[in-house]
Amino acid sequence: MGGARKLTVDLGERSYPIYIGEGLLDEAGVRLAEHGISKKSPLLIVTDNRVAERHLGRLEALLRESGFTVASAVIPSGEASKSLSRLEELVGAALERGLDRKSAVVALGGGVVGDLAGFVAASYMRGIKFVQIPTTILAHDSSVGGKVAVNHPLAKNIIGAFHQPELVLYDLDTLQTLPEREVKAGLSEVVKHGLIWDAEFVAWCDANAEKLLALDPEALGYALYKGCSVKAAVVSKDERENDLRAILNLGHTIGHALEAVAGYGELLHGEAIAIGMVGAARLAVRLGAPEDVYRVTKRVLARVGLPVRLPSHLDTDAIMSAMMHDKKFQEGAITFIVPVAVGKVEINKSVSTALIREIVEELKQEAVEA
Amino acid sequence: MGGARKLTVDLGERSYPIYIGEGLLDEAGVRLAEHGISKKSPLLIVTDNRVAERHLGRLEALLRESGFTVASAVIPSGEASKSLSRLEELVGAALERGLDRKSAVVALGGGVVGDLAGFVAASYMRGIKFVQIPTTILAHDSSVGGKVAVNHPLAKNIIGAFHQPELVLYDLDTLQTLPEREVKAGLSEVVKHGLIWDAEFVAWCDANAEKLLALDPEALGYALYKGCSVKAAVVSKDERENDLRAILNLGHTIGHALEAVAGYGELLHGEAIAIGMVGAARLAVRLGAPEDVYRVTKRVLARVGLPVRLPSHLDTDAIMSAMMHDKKFQEGAITFIVPVAVGKVEINKSVSTALIREIVEELKQEAVEA
Repeated sequence: MGGARKLTVDLGERSYPIYIGEGLLDEAGVRLAEHGISKKSPLLIVTDNRVAERHLGRLEALLRESGFTVASAVIPSGEASKSLSRLEELVGAALERGLDRKSAVVALGGGVVGDLAGFVAASYMRGIKFVQIPTTILAHDSSVGGKVAVNHPLAKNIIGAFHQPELVLYDLDTLQTLPEREVKAGLSEVVKHGLIWDAEFVAWCDANAEKLLALDPEALGYALYKGCSVKAAVVSKDERENDLRAILNLGHTIGHALEAVAGYGELLHGEAIAIGMVGAARLAVRLGAPEDVYRVTKRVLARVGLPVRLPSHLDTDAIMSAMMHDKKFQEGAITFIVPVAVGKVEINKSVSTALIREIVEELKQEAVEA
Repeated sequence: MGGARKLTVDLGERSYPIYIGEGLLDEAGVRLAEHGISKKSPLLIVTDNRVAERHLGRLEALLRESGFTVASAVIPSGEASKSLSRLEELVGAALERGLDRKSAVVALGGGVVGDLAGFVAASYMRGIKFVQIPTTILAHDSSVGGKVAVNHPLAKNIIGAFHQPELVLYDLDTLQTLPEREVKAGLSEVVKHGLIWDAEFVAWCDANAEKLLALDPEALGYALYKGCSVKAAVVSKDERENDLRAILNLGHTIGHALEAVAGYGELLHGEAIAIGMVGAARLAVRLGAPEDVYRVTKRVLARVGLPVRLPSHLDTDAIMSAMMHDKKFQEGAITFIVPVAVGKVEINKSVSTALIREIVEELKQEAVEA
């Protein structure tokens, strides 16, 4: 308890707290009760097979000791689980276990579990309560803002809702077993939150990269707190992505296209958007931003072990075409988030596709320091 | 235009108008533009094969003449279309036709089309605009309040959202070809809105039953206006069904159970809830309400051609069990809506299952006037 950080995502009557610290799983029962989760109605924990092995038995036991009625559903880990057929399966589980309108869905896992379980909570009986217990660094991003969704065979995250959790419990202990590549990819969104909002935090990431990569609890707790804080500040001002919230998409215009073209697996999401952020920084300088935007962006990403060069075998035409099929393509224009300084970005709707194509080509030549 | 009635559903920034009148389809282009539907982004009209034959070509042509880009998707008529696989199909159609965040889904049809198309609009890109053009009397009910949903193999309407339309266009001309049985079943919800809120309107329905059954445009327009008004008044006070909105479920506790046990087709929704309303009125008298609650309820429903006796071959145990699996069964108790006078109801959470069982038995003996 002592060292836990608490942050409030300020959304009026939908406000909720995020707790970040060590040993928080042990307090799950108390925290859920404190934040209005009913003990009279059953809970459904949704998790994946990898996380289930490590944490599910313990969480079930802890919640039962606290007086909750607990059911669980385990999905296969991986993006393929974000489908309507999994949604149907989980709704079936919820019905069979007697979940009612006062029940809650608890997401124990990373982004896939959070997105799927969140959409179950958003749509079951037209919306029941939702609790997030993220077990990856990347999930700090999806734990703020209430975006939940499943995929369609033709597009990612295209069927979803805005559904805010009642609370988020971020137990740093669950991050200690993350594979190294996922640690780095998760740090990509952490750094992104600095790049769009907070130059000082970018410098801190640069200075503390080694501690972060070593999963030092104090450094990691601070970084997640800062990352969540930036996102919370943005989301509080624009819950439904009418305008400002778009700045969170720094690096995503190119990044999403890379993921689509590379096929899932070659590039993790965090890796793709790291390359995308270098692209956005290159674009920024071309549009008149100071040179250090590019230099600092590239350096801090490389420091936390992320790729900064676009794999040269990916076809530029395919990348451009994928960009046109994104949700960010609207009424005929691409929305591009462009830095104007370190820690500050702008929404630009008039970047020409010709210029974006040049940047994509340049990214394939990006120098990588030894 | 001249004779159209307009009603506003008052939900703060989600408020929207309902237009009721003859010839409104002809004005669709003007009305949509007037209420903020974009001509730059494509529309998707969702309808069923029966309605498509009569009205789709004309609506498409009218909207195109007004400068909209229009795509259409036709689903098979009937409850089976309210499924996640139809949702996936319609989202695929939306993607293929290039619908973006500024696009709208237009539901042209009855309750099934409205519920399914509404959930497509609620979940596509986490929510785009929605327009309803109801073509049945029953749909007056679903056109107010924003409840949209699909079915799960284990339960009706269990996966859904609250998603308000931008506007509702109720063209009385489209009702003229409704089969007689559907006219009567649709009037069941109209009468219900009187029974929960407006004794004078109940008397008006009793006096004007013949005109309503003959689809007299003036009478029908007034009845739909009144029905929508009552629902709008209730929904405005409780958009997300925390409390008051439950009164709209008069007749539904028994009615839903009857539908589930009879199997879809034997009893239409409106017929099942007519029997359920007679049951609620019987229960009311047992709990101390004046005798005329029962007498008036039964008479007005019979006057508009609805069944008031529960088919005796339906098994009482099966009906009771179905009631326990309803969304209205919560934290161990059944929520029952009970009249206290004609035009006034109460929410009662302490009706014993033994008493409900007695009422179900009595409903099988209900006398039917010649």
